[in-house]
Amino acid sequence: MIANPIPWPNGARCAVAMTWDMDADSAFNWYNQATADNLVAAQSWTRYDPLIAIPRLVEHFARRDLRLTFFVPGWVIEKYPAQIDLLLEHGHEIGLHGYLHERSNEIAAEDERYWLDRALAAYEKQIGRRPRGWRAPSFAFSKHSLGYLLDRGFEYDSSLMGDDIPYALREGASGRSLIELPVDWTLDDFPHYAHNRDLGYRMPIAAPQRAHEVFRSEFDAAWEYGGLWISVWHPALSGRPARFKAALELLDHMHAKGGVWFARLDEICDHVRQLIASGRWTPRSETLPLYESPLPEFARDR
Amino acid sequence: MIANPIPWPNGARCAVAMTWDMDADSAFNWYNQATADNLVAAQSWTRYDPLIAIPRLVEHFARRDLRLTFFVPGWVIEKYPAQIDLLLEHGHEIGLHGYLHERSNEIAAEDERYWLDRALAAYEKQIGRRPRGWRAPSFAFSKHSLGYLLDRGFEYDSSLMGDDIPYALREGASGRSLIELPVDWTLDDFPHYAHNRDLGYRMPIAAPQRAHEVFRSEFDAAWEYGGLWISVWHPALSGRPARFKAALELLDHMHAKGGVWFARLDEICDHVRQLIASGRWTPRSETLPLYESPLPEFARDR
Amino acid sequence: MIANPIPWPNGARCAVAMTWDMDADSAFNWYNQATADNLVAAQSWTRYDPLIAIPRLVEHFARRDLRLTFFVPGWVIEKYPAQIDLLLEHGHEIGLHGYLHERSNEIAAEDERYWLDRALAAYEKQIGRRPRGWRAPSFAFSKHSLGYLLDRGFEYDSSLMGDDIPYALREGASGRSLIELPVDWTLDDFPHYAHNRDLGYRMPIAAPQRAHEVFRSEFDAAWEYGGLWISVWHPALSGRPARFKAALELLDHMHAKGGVWFARLDEICDHVRQLIASGRWTPRSETLPLYESPLPEFARDR
Amino acid sequence: MIANPIPWPNGARCAVAMTWDMDADSAFNWYNQATADNLVAAQSWTRYDPLIAIPRLVEHFARRDLRLTFFVPGWVIEKYPAQIDLLLEHGHEIGLHGYLHERSNEIAAEDERYWLDRALAAYEKQIGRRPRGWRAPSFAFSKHSLGYLLDRGFEYDSSLMGDDIPYALREGASGRSLIELPVDWTLDDFPHYAHNRDLGYRMPIAAPQRAHEVFRSEFDAAWEYGGLWISVWHPALSGRPARFKAALELLDHMHAKGGVWFARLDEICDHVRQLIASGRWTPRSETLPLYESPLPEFARDR
Repeated sequence: MIANPIPWPNGARCAVAMTWDMDADSAFNWYNQATADNLVAAQSWTRYDPLIAIPRLVEHFARRDLRLTFFVPGWVIEKYPAQIDLLLEHGHEIGLHGYLHERSNEIAAEDERYWLDRALAAYEKQIGRRPRGWRAPSFAFSKHSLGYLLDRGFEYDSSLMGDDIPYALREGASGRSLIELPVDWTLDDFPHYAHNRDLGYRMPIAAPQRAHEVFRSEFDAAWEYGGLWISVWHPALSGRPARFKAALELLDHMHAKGGVWFARLDEICDHVRQLIASGRWTPRSETLPLYESPLPEFARDR
Repeated sequence: MIANPIPWPNGARCAVAMTWDMDADSAFNWYNQATADNLVAAQSWTRYDPLIAIPRLVEHFARRDLRLTFFVPGWVIEKYPAQIDLLLEHGHEIGLHGYLHERSNEIAAEDERYWLDRALAAYEKQIGRRPRGWRAPSFAFSKHSLGYLLDRGFEYDSSLMGDDIPYALREGASGRSLIELPVDWTLDDFPHYAHNRDLGYRMPIAAPQRAHEVFRSEFDAAWEYGGLWISVWHPALSGRPARFKAALELLDHMHAKGGVWFARLDEICDHVRQLIASGRWTPRSETLPLYESPLPEFARDR
Repeated sequence: MIANPIPWPNGARCAVAMTWDMDADSAFNWYNQATADNLVAAQSWTRYDPLIAIPRLVEHFARRDLRLTFFVPGWVIEKYPAQIDLLLEHGHEIGLHGYLHERSNEIAAEDERYWLDRALAAYEKQIGRRPRGWRAPSFAFSKHSLGYLLDRGFEYDSSLMGDDIPYALREGASGRSLIELPVDWTLDDFPHYAHNRDLGYRMPIAAPQRAHEVFRSEFDAAWEYGGLWISVWHPALSGRPARFKAALELLDHMHAKGGVWFARLDEICDHVRQLIASGRWTPRSETLPLYESPLPEFARDR
Repeated sequence: MIANPIPWPNGARCAVAMTWDMDADSAFNWYNQATADNLVAAQSWTRYDPLIAIPRLVEHFARRDLRLTFFVPGWVIEKYPAQIDLLLEHGHEIGLHGYLHERSNEIAAEDERYWLDRALAAYEKQIGRRPRGWRAPSFAFSKHSLGYLLDRGFEYDSSLMGDDIPYALREGASGRSLIELPVDWTLDDFPHYAHNRDLGYRMPIAAPQRAHEVFRSEFDAAWEYGGLWISVWHPALSGRPARFKAALELLDHMHAKGGVWFARLDEICDHVRQLIASGRWTPRSETLPLYESPLPEFARDR
C-alpha cells in the first residue's frame, strides 16, 4: 500500500503524532481584523483553548507519559506565556505557527517574511531557542515559504499533504531541503466540529464517536500499512470534555493495538534524518516551487 | 478534567439546564427586514414555536415537574403574552433575549442600548419585574454589552463560551461583575436541524437519534466530570414531535443516571452567588473588554 | 403532544400522504434562466424525473394499490403530457406547483398572478378540470398567494409549516379560507440527497438508510401522537433505485405498524371539510397576511 | 424497477465500472488560475493523486486482475507520462477528461473546441491512438459538446445523469449518436470526502464506512434491479489508505454477491453496440440539444 515504506523505530508498525494547533484567539483576529474587538462570544470561545483546554491536555498527557507537538503562533506565545511554560515543563515540543495565524499565501512576500521574523522573535524571547518545526497557519504555505524556512534553520514542515509518510522538500534553486511530515484535512478536527460564524465555518457538528470513526479509520490504515498518523486538532474543539474523552479513548485503542511509536514531530524528524544519514532509507523528494507563476496556458494571448 | 470544580447542591455530579430560546418570528424578521412580510412559509415555520411548541413543552415539563429557563425577545413577549403567562404559571424563568433578536455586535452602541431598553420595557410591562438573566441573540455579545447589562441590574449572562462551568465576567473599568453561565454551539440545535433559506441556514438535517448522540455525549461528559450542561434549543426545531420525544428520552437518560441537578439558570446563579458569599468556591474571572479596538498589529503603518 | 387532535377516518392513528413534487427541468430553468440551455448534465439529471422515475413510481404504487398526490408545474404538464396521463390513469392526484417553479415571493404581484394563471391554463387544458390543491414552488408562498388561490377556487394548500396537523388559512379581509396541509423541510428529500451546483444545492449525500432515519422518526412520532406525515420528495432524488427501495421499505414499515390512513391530499382535504361541516372537529385557524409591510420597528426614523 | 432492462454479458445481474478521474493538479489550476502558483498545500494534495495513489491503485487492481477506466485531462497526460504508461501497461483504459479540467459550459464554444483539440493532441501524442470515451470535467457538458465529440470520433460519453443504464445521445441536426454511460453525484466521492478551500469544497468529511453506505446501497440496488454502477472517484480522495481499503472491501462485497460484470467503459460501450447491432436490445435515446437558447418564457417582452 505504501510504495517506499519507512522503517519505524523498534519495528513499530506505524508512527502517531497527536499534534495540536494552539491558535487561541489569533486566527479569529486575523479573519476579523476590523471587528474582532466586538465579537465577545468568539473571543471567549477561542480563549477556551489556552485557559481551559491546555492545562487539561497537559495533565492528561502527563498521566499517560505522552509528549506531543503543539504548534503555536508567536502572538499566542507572547499572550499566554504561562501555558507555554507549562507545555515545555511537561516535555512537549512547541512548533511555530505564524505570528497572528496569517495566511502566508494571500499576503505579499515581504509581509510573509515580516510576520515570520516577528514570530521567530517571540518564540526565541519566550523559549530561549529557535523552533525546529513549522506548520503554516491554515496550511497556507506560499511559494516563498520553503526558502524562508530554510534561511531560518527550520528542520521540518508539517503543512503539506503529498504523502502518507515523511518526504523531503527540496528548494530547486539551492538544493537545500527539509523534512515534510505531511497532514491531511481528514485528520483535522475543523471539518467535524467547527460551527462558528465568526470563524467562517459552519459545519454540521459531529458527535465525538462519529468524528472518531474518521480518525480511527485513518489510524487503523496507518497501522496496517506502516503510515504516519498526524492529527491537527485544536484545543477549543477537541479539548472540550466529551471530545477529549473520545481522544483519550482513541489513545487507548492505539495502545491496545500495540506496535505504535508515539512521538513528537521533532523526534520523527530526527529519526528520518538518522535513516537518511545511515543510508537505511531515502525519502521521496519534492522540488519547490512547482510553478513560478500562474500557468502560461491561461495567458490571454495564447 | 475540570480544573476548579464547582460543588453542586446535594452532592450532585453535574447540573443540567435545558434552556430554550423562544425566538418566534423575531430573528427571521431581523435577518429579512425588507422582505419578511412576503416570506409566508418562514412566518408559519417561526410561529410554530409560540403557537404549537410552547404549549406542548409546558405540558410535558409540568408532567415531569421540571421548571426551565426560556430566553425571549421583548417583541415576542409583546406579541405572545398568553404564552408568557403560561410559562410563568408553570414556574419557568423568562430570561431576556434582545428586543427583535438584534445582533448587538453589528449595530452602533446607541442602537444596542435602544433595543435593550425597549426589550426591558416590554419585559417589565408584561411580567412586572426585571429579568435576572440575559442571552445575547445569536450570541452576538458586544464589547459594550457587559456594561449595559450591569447598569440595568442583570445578574447573569448565558451567551459566552469560555468554560465548562460558571465563571465571572468582570468589567475592567468598574470592577463590577456578573455570573457567566456558558454555552457552546455544540449544545445548540441549529447545527443539527436548521434548514431554511429564509433563516440563512442550510444544514443537512440530522435524525433525532443522531443529534442526540452529540447532546448526550456532552451530558455524559458533564456527568462524569462535574460540568454544567446548558442546551440552547429552539421550539420550532426541537419542539417538533419526533425531536421533542428524543429530548424527553434524553431527560429519562439523565434521570436514570442519577445525581443530576435539574435547574433554571436563575437557580444556578443563586447557587453560585451563595458559594461565593460563603467562601466555599470562587469562580474563575474574566475581565472585559478584552480589546478596546482592533489589534494595533494590523495597523497600516506598522 | 398534539393540542387539538384530529380524528382520522376509521380510527386511524395517523395519516400518511407520500407526496412528490414532479419538478422535472422547471426549477433548474428558473434558477438558471440565462444559462440553462448550456447545462446539459443538469438537464439530463432533472429529466430523469419524468422519463425514468415517474413510470417506476406509478408501477410500484399500483402494485401496492396506493394513490398519491403529485405536485406539477404547468410547464411540466405541457412538456410531459404522457406522464400526466399515466399518473391520472392510476388514480393519482395532480396538484398545481406554479408554472415554471417560480419563486412567488421574489417577483412582483402581477407576475405571480401571470404565472399562476398560465399554470392553471396548462392544467385545465391537459387535465380538463381545475386543480384542488397548491404547493408553492420552493415553498415561496407570498403575502398575495392566499387571495390569488381563493379567487381561483383552490381548496387546500400544502406549502406552509405551522402545525403537525391540518389547519385553516383565513384571509383577513374577506374571511374566506382554505385548508392548510402543512409540510416541513424535515420531510423534504433535498437536505439529504441534493448535491448539484446547477441547482444551488451542495449537501453531503446521505445513504438511504440515514435519510430514512429522519423520515421514519417523523412517521413514528406522527403514529404515536396522531399527526399528519407529508413527504416532499422529488423523483430525480428519491426515485433512484436505492432510494426508492428505501421508500418502499418505509411503506412496509408503516403498513406493518398498522392503523395508518394512506391518502391523497385531496382526500385529506375532504375529510377535514367533512369534520368541520359535521361539527366533529374544528381546525385551528391562521389569518393572513400576518404583516402588510416590513416591520415599522425597522423604520429609519424610529 | 428498470423499464427497459439491458441484458448484461453471461447473464450477469449488473455491471460495475469503478472509474477514476485522475485530475491531478489540473482542476485546482483551472479554479485558481491567478493564484495556484502560491497555493502549495493544494499543489501537494492534488499531486498525491499521480505520485502516490496511482501506483497504489495499479498494484492492487493488478492483484485482483481488474482493468478499469481512468479519465485523464490532456495536461495531466503530458505532465505525468510515466503514470499513463503504467496504467496502460496494466490494461486500464484512458478516457479523455478535457485539457486543463475546463468547465466547457462556462466558456465560449471556440474555447471549448480549442481545449478539446489540445487535449486530443496530448492524448494521441502520448498514447498513440484516439480516445474512445469522454467525461466532461466537472460534468460541465455544454450544448456544443455532443457535436464536437461526434466530429472527433468519440464513441461514448460518461458525463450525463439521465438513466440507470446506458442510453443513446442523438444529435438532432445530424442524426449521429454516441452511447451515454450515465453517472450521478451519488457515486462521486467529492460530496463525501472533499474538504479543501482551494478547491471550493468544504464538505463534512465522512468516515469510509459512512461514504460506503452510499456507494454500497447504490450497488445493491444495481445488483437487484439490473443497473449499471459507475463510480466517479478521485485518487487524491479515495486513494488514501483508509478509503482505498474500504473500496477494496466494497469490491470484495461485490465479488461475494456474485453475478457482477466488472468492466471498463469501453467494454460496456462495445457490449451496448453489439446488442444494438444484433437487435437484442435497443437503448432509449435522448436528442440534444434540448434547448437552443434560454427559455423564451423568460423573455422580457413576454
